[in-house]
Amino acid sequence: MSTNPTNSMSTALLTDMYEYTMLDAALQDGTANRRCVFEVYTRRLPQGRRYGVVAGTGRLIEAIQNFQPSQDDIAFLADRNIVSTASIAWLENYHFSGTIRGYREGEIFFPNSPVLQVEGTFAECTLLETLILSILNYDSAVASAASRMVSAANGRPCMDMGARRTNEWAAVSAARSAIIGGFSGTSNLQAAKMYGIPAIGTAAHCFTLLHDSERDAFVSQIQALGSNTTLLTDTYSIEEAVATAVEVAGPHLGGVRIDSGDLAALAQQVRNQLDALGASEAKITVTNDLDEFAIAALQNAPVDSYGVGTQLVTGSGAPTCSMVYKLVEREGSDGNMIPVAKRSQNKATVPGRKIAFRSYEYKLATAEHVLSGSPGALASFQVPDNWRDLLVTYMLNGEATNAWTGKEAMLAAREHRAQSLSELPLSAMSLMNGDPTIPTLEHIL
Amino acid sequence: MSTNPTNSMSTALLTDMYEYTMLDAALQDGTANRRCVFEVYTRRLPQGRRYGVVAGTGRLIEAIQNFQPSQDDIAFLADRNIVSTASIAWLENYHFSGTIRGYREGEIFFPNSPVLQVEGTFAECTLLETLILSILNYDSAVASAASRMVSAANGRPCMDMGARRTNEWAAVSAARSAIIGGFSGTSNLQAAKMYGIPAIGTAAHCFTLLHDSERDAFVSQIQALGSNTTLLTDTYSIEEAVATAVEVAGPHLGGVRIDSGDLAALAQQVRNQLDALGASEAKITVTNDLDEFAIAALQNAPVDSYGVGTQLVTGSGAPTCSMVYKLVEREGSDGNMIPVAKRSQNKATVPGRKIAFRSYEYKLATAEHVLSGSPGALASFQVPDNWRDLLVTYMLNGEATNAWTGKEAMLAAREHRAQSLSELPLSAMSLMNGDPTIPTLEHIL
Repeated sequence: MSTNPTNSMSTALLTDMYEYTMLDAALQDGTANRRCVFEVYTRRLPQGRRYGVVAGTGRLIEAIQNFQPSQDDIAFLADRNIVSTASIAWLENYHFSGTIRGYREGEIFFPNSPVLQVEGTFAECTLLETLILSILNYDSAVASAASRMVSAANGRPCMDMGARRTNEWAAVSAARSAIIGGFSGTSNLQAAKMYGIPAIGTAAHCFTLLHDSERDAFVSQIQALGSNTTLLTDTYSIEEAVATAVEVAGPHLGGVRIDSGDLAALAQQVRNQLDALGASEAKITVTNDLDEFAIAALQNAPVDSYGVGTQLVTGSGAPTCSMVYKLVEREGSDGNMIPVAKRSQNKATVPGRKIAFRSYEYKLATAEHVLSGSPGALASFQVPDNWRDLLVTYMLNGEATNAWTGKEAMLAAREHRAQSLSELPLSAMSLMNGDPTIPTLEHIL
Repeated sequence: MSTNPTNSMSTALLTDMYEYTMLDAALQDGTANRRCVFEVYTRRLPQGRRYGVVAGTGRLIEAIQNFQPSQDDIAFLADRNIVSTASIAWLENYHFSGTIRGYREGEIFFPNSPVLQVEGTFAECTLLETLILSILNYDSAVASAASRMVSAANGRPCMDMGARRTNEWAAVSAARSAIIGGFSGTSNLQAAKMYGIPAIGTAAHCFTLLHDSERDAFVSQIQALGSNTTLLTDTYSIEEAVATAVEVAGPHLGGVRIDSGDLAALAQQVRNQLDALGASEAKITVTNDLDEFAIAALQNAPVDSYGVGTQLVTGSGAPTCSMVYKLVEREGSDGNMIPVAKRSQNKATVPGRKIAFRSYEYKLATAEHVLSGSPGALASFQVPDNWRDLLVTYMLNGEATNAWTGKEAMLAAREHRAQSLSELPLSAMSLMNGDPTIPTLEHIL
């Protein structure tokens, strides 16, 4: 698979400095080896959203396996006096040996859903905070936006064309997250290569402008790619372009793309023109700053697929999920685990490790249940009928329990999102601002 | 310098597929070697913004130098039949040999400012579209947001703490862009290492929770980092934490951080308490979803520095600059250069290569001037007094004209932004929604 930087390079400095200085202080004061449980969750969904989609966990597991400071990283930490020499020795042998559980990739989440649970020593867990949050916050933001777009598209395929509107490597992750959210392909070649995603594309206006005529450009594209290709029709007059396209490609023209103007009206005109010219199989792809609302508004227009850019890769108004990574339980000086919580205003946390379930009635989800309590109480909890356990084990004592990062895992996540969403009340699919589709109920056992 | 993936790995697949299929068709029809000029600009600033800040160009020049498909990339392009075997041979020898001019990093830009101009054959220029836009769109979005925050902070330092709220590699670029926008440091260690940015940090709530008491945590942090460190005070009661902090660190406590609640009121209480306890030198850092408006609202509060996260790395509501890459001029079949433009509805382009200047009166900018015309007219244009030429040469015939990527270039860009902003009317600093501070005037010579 190779070239994902996060998955082939050391990820050990994709952190905030305080993670290393806390490690250093804890190693000196003897608390570094206290066992800890950290949890990742979001306090709220973005404004008006009904649900979120977990994505990034597979990438994250690989990134954690590559979290080993290189000699270069170590030299930097030493030269800048970020940690003491004692810590350097510890870091040279660092390898995450803890256990990670969490929601499946593609799982629906709600406020306070414990989407990830990281258990290990304080030292090994605290170093991962930023890496975990970077990956889950961005990937889940994109998957959550993608999922709304896919629902709005109501069966028509959505294609990721957003690379140009976000950081060059964020784009690669975004393509993967879009697939998990239900998209069907990506224009981004690095993502196509790394994750085995279908690569898609048409042509740019510059290709038409490069040629002495639009006809020359169409002829060239068809000679190179076959008549099944998609021609871009809005460089000059759309009507003339469509006529030329069918003349050049014949009735088996693959499709046309419209990238400007009133897309619904234009799609209708172009459909009628294509049909009149005998190209009734030619598909119409529309692009141009689409989001879930624009896609929904095109529901009655004869559009065959949507190319989505900016709004996909920027989370359609919510470019982060605002997930946090909080210590909920740690070993005390007597060796027993103690639930802990901060009491910061408006940001207080719920102490103790959680277990999480979704309850169903007549096959539809009714609530998210997040339970905390003593280890004994959690272990002996009798799971009611029609409650689904939401936590799976990603890593056990430092070893990944499965291949979480490849194409199969990505496609499994895509399926899981579709299944999980189909089990929510229909209000989940509403684009109107509203509350989470089901409530999150916190239980203390 | 090393480990920036974009700058040490092949960047050749950080593209959209159509760039390779257009290349393929153009190589087959003989237009691939036509000389072209592409320009990067944005049609409008984000809603209400007065100006933008160019960032990313230095990173981009390095990324273009690394744009050479690896054997692995070539195999992918062949296996997926994205290009023909003739194109594969061409790609194996690809090296950008063109010329790139553009606005300096740190330069202020407005709608239609030609922030980058790429000149070369169609083949070599078209491949770069997505990479150029990804880097400039994201980096400039962050620098533009940073610049507004720095103005609002009015001399108090702003620190990047945003890594956890964006893609893990986007975060590294964001830290660099924040510095160009006027920020003073970053919590992100990878960015600190790659770009020589001052690394900053305090401690997380988990560090306090890990210990048997808040006092234990403070003692540990001070023993590891010295009394000049910054202690986090809002895990439990802020008042008690501040008292403990001064007891433990003594009057030379470095500072405290407040991360929740009403930051203005709390800063005032904490300042008074610190002063009463004799710790009048201790600094107050505030964090918690700050943006330029929150920073401006804290102007009268006794705050010493701002830690900014989400809103910095997501461009404070504008996560992309919506820059586009458009063909404006190309060689005709007779060998002469021809201005070209698309006529798409609402997205028409202005034909021809541009030159760009900013005019001044009494040392204040009055307008952005974007001029097009025949090569002769442009060459003989008499630049009026008090017009500043905005274009510099980054690459000449495939060679970088300077070291555009290192720490010095980043700091020069930071200075340039400050200088360039100081030459704008004061309305540029307004956070109220409004038009661009100066108009962009398009001239045809």
